Amino acid sequence: MHSGDPNGARQALLPAGLQDVLYPDAAHEAAIVEKLIRHVSRFGYARVKPPLIEFEDSLLAGPGGQVSEQTFRLMDPISQRMMGLRADMTPQVARVAVSRLAQEPRPLRLCYAGEVLRVRGSQLRPERQFTQVGVELIGTASRRADAEAVFLASDALLSVGVEGLSVDLALPTLVGRLFEVLGLSEQERQELRAALDRKDAAAVQQAAGRHADLFDGLLRASGLADEALERLMALPLPESVLGEIERLSEVIGEVRRMNPELVLTVDCVDHRGFEYQTGLSFTLFASGVRGELGRGGRYDAPRGEAEGEPAIGFTLFMDSVLRALPIPSEGRRIYLPSDSDGAFANALRAVGWITVTALDESADVYSEARRLKCTHLLVADRIEEVED
Amino acid sequence: MHSGDPNGARQALLPAGLQDVLYPDAAHEAAIVEKLIRHVSRFGYARVKPPLIEFEDSLLAGPGGQVSEQTFRLMDPISQRMMGLRADMTPQVARVAVSRLAQEPRPLRLCYAGEVLRVRGSQLRPERQFTQVGVELIGTASRRADAEAVFLASDALLSVGVEGLSVDLALPTLVGRLFEVLGLSEQERQELRAALDRKDAAAVQQAAGRHADLFDGLLRASGLADEALERLMALPLPESVLGEIERLSEVIGEVRRMNPELVLTVDCVDHRGFEYQTGLSFTLFASGVRGELGRGGRYDAPRGEAEGEPAIGFTLFMDSVLRALPIPSEGRRIYLPSDSDGAFANALRAVGWITVTALDESADVYSEARRLKCTHLLVADRIEEVED
Repeated sequence: MHSGDPNGARQALLPAGLQDVLYPDAAHEAAIVEKLIRHVSRFGYARVKPPLIEFEDSLLAGPGGQVSEQTFRLMDPISQRMMGLRADMTPQVARVAVSRLAQEPRPLRLCYAGEVLRVRGSQLRPERQFTQVGVELIGTASRRADAEAVFLASDALLSVGVEGLSVDLALPTLVGRLFEVLGLSEQERQELRAALDRKDAAAVQQAAGRHADLFDGLLRASGLADEALERLMALPLPESVLGEIERLSEVIGEVRRMNPELVLTVDCVDHRGFEYQTGLSFTLFASGVRGELGRGGRYDAPRGEAEGEPAIGFTLFMDSVLRALPIPSEGRRIYLPSDSDGAFANALRAVGWITVTALDESADVYSEARRLKCTHLLVADRIEEVED
Repeated sequence: MHSGDPNGARQALLPAGLQDVLYPDAAHEAAIVEKLIRHVSRFGYARVKPPLIEFEDSLLAGPGGQVSEQTFRLMDPISQRMMGLRADMTPQVARVAVSRLAQEPRPLRLCYAGEVLRVRGSQLRPERQFTQVGVELIGTASRRADAEAVFLASDALLSVGVEGLSVDLALPTLVGRLFEVLGLSEQERQELRAALDRKDAAAVQQAAGRHADLFDGLLRASGLADEALERLMALPLPESVLGEIERLSEVIGEVRRMNPELVLTVDCVDHRGFEYQTGLSFTLFASGVRGELGRGGRYDAPRGEAEGEPAIGFTLFMDSVLRALPIPSEGRRIYLPSDSDGAFANALRAVGWITVTALDESADVYSEARRLKCTHLLVADRIEEVED
C-alpha cells in the first residue's frame, strides 16, 4: 500500500525506530495498558503521571543515571536549563515518591503507564519509543515486598492472557559480593566475570583458581527454581552471602504460595541490565515471544544527600507484551443512512455496534457499506448483513 | 507537604508548565481519555498512534506549520536530521491519513489520544504538556461531515458527564472572503480586522466606511445560533459569501436534529486560533470552567505537491475537560494480613475492592490499616470497618 503512494511517500518516512501504530494495534495496546493498570490498582498501587520532560539533573539522578546516554536533551528556553526526554519512568516515579509524596505512609505503592524515548534502539529492541507500564513499591526492604513484586508482575500479565509465562530470578549483586568476601584481585574479578557472562564453564574453572568449585557450582545452579536452589544450598558459600540465597528461597516460597503454577527459574550469575539493582531482580518471558516482557528488581530510591529508600518495582514493555497476545477481532460495524434515527443508532452503539453514518447520498448503499468495510447495513429499518 | 521535605525539594522542582499528576487525578484522567476514545470509536473512528517525535519537515508540513514556534527540536543522531517533539497531533494524524492510509476508503475516520509538548505555555493555558483526545474525518467536504464533527465532539463530552456545555461556531475565513469580494485595500482590511477583533462597534463602523452596515451587522450577528442566523440572513451579503451562511445554517439544522438540546452559539468575526482552518470551525465550552474544552474545524490535509484532502476534526484538551468533571470517590480499600488466602483476595478484587497486603508482621493491625488509608481490614476472616 505504501510504496504505491508517491504523494505520501516522503512524508511517511519516520526516523528509524519510530512508527505510526495503526488500528487495530493502537486500540489493542491502549486496552491492554488500561487492563494492566486496573489490575495492579486493585492491589493498592496508585497511579501517578510524571511529565515527559524534566530537568536533566533530576531525571538522571540515582537510577536514572543508567540511561543517561540514551536520553534526548532539550534546552528549556524559560529557565535556560537543560532538560531530558525520559528514557525510563522508574527514576521519575522514585523521584515523585521521595519528594512530593515523601510524607505519604510507607510502604508506598505507585503505578504508571507512559511513553519513553531512547536516543538509539538496541539490537534486541530496535524501537526508540515504547510504552512502559509498571509499579514501584517504595520504603520497604521486606522479603514479602520482593514476593509481591514478582507475583504481581506475573499476575498482571496472566490477567491479560499471556501464555507460557516464566519468571527468571537473578541476584545481580551476588557475584560481586563473593569477589569482595573472597578477596579476589581486580584482574581475577575481570577474568572471572567475563567467563561467567559467557557461561563458559572451562574458563570459569580456570579463572576461579582455588574457588573453581564454588564458581563452577554457581554457574551450574541455573534453571528451574527448585533444582537451582538445591544446588545453591549445597555450595560452600561464605556465611555473609548465604543470607541472600536464603532470602531468595523464602521469596520463591512466598511467590509459590500465591501462584503454585508459575514457572520460576534462577540465574545467579546474571547481572547485565540490572546495573542499578541492589538485590533480587527478575525478568519476565513468554515462550516463543521475542524479547523480555518486563523486568524488575530492588533498588534505592535516591534522596539527595540522605540515604535512599529501599524499593522494588517492575516495568512491562508493551511492545513485547503485545507480541504475546492475539489481536482481538473487531466488532460488528453497521452502515447507517444519513437521516437515520439518532436514538436507534445510540441503542446500537450501547450494545457494542460500531456505526458508520453516510455523509452523502448514495445510489447503491449496499456497495457503499462494503466499500467502508461495514459488516452490516440498515435498509428500510432492517439490519442486513454485507456479504464479502 | 512539599515545603517540609528538604531532601526532595531540589528534585521536585520541575520546569515551568510541567507537572507530576498524582492520584487520584492521574487515574481519573486516564479513565476519561479511554471513555472518550471508546465513545468516538463506536462512531467508526479507528484509533491511530503516531510517534512523539518525527522529522521536523513532516511534522511541520501543512497545518503543523502553525505550531512551528511552539515545537521543541531535537537532533536525530542516527539520520543527522532535525526532529520535532509534537505540539499538536492533528498534523500527525493528517499525515498518517494521506500517506500510510492513502489507499483506505474515504471518508476516513480516525481518532487518537496522546501527550503534546509546547515550548512555552500561553496565558490561558500555562501548561506546556497536555493530553489531547481527538478525531479526524478525512476525504470529505460534505456538510454532514461538519455536522458529525460538531455533534460528536459535544456528544463525547456529554457522555463523560460534562454539564453546561455549549458549542461556539465560527466561520474564520468569512471576513477575509468579504474583504476580497468587496475589494478593500490592505489598510482598510487591517483597520477593520483590528476593530472586529476588539468587537469595537464604533471603530468597525468607522473603518468599514461604505460597508458600515454590513460589518456592523456581522459583528452583532453573534450569540445564540437561531438569532444569529436570522440576523446574518438579513444582511446585504454578496452572493458568493451567502453560500457559507447557508451551509452554516444547514449544519446547525443537522446538529439540532441529532441533539435538539445542545446550546449552539455563532460568532462570525472570530478567527483567532483558527489559522489553518478553511471553513466551519468550533470551540467547546462548559459554563464556569476556565479555558476551552476543545476546538475543531475544517482544514486541508496536505499531500505534498498534490491538492490537499478536505478534512474536519476536533481536539479535546484534557486539562480543561477534567476541570469540568468531579473527581470520582475512591473505592473500598481493605488491609489484608500477609498470609491471607489468595483466592479470597482475588474474589474481593474481582468485585471492585482494593486490597493492601501486609508486608511485615504488625502488632496493631488496626492502626496499621488506618495508617495505610484503608477503609476496612480483615481480622480473623471477618471484614471490619476502619473508623476515622
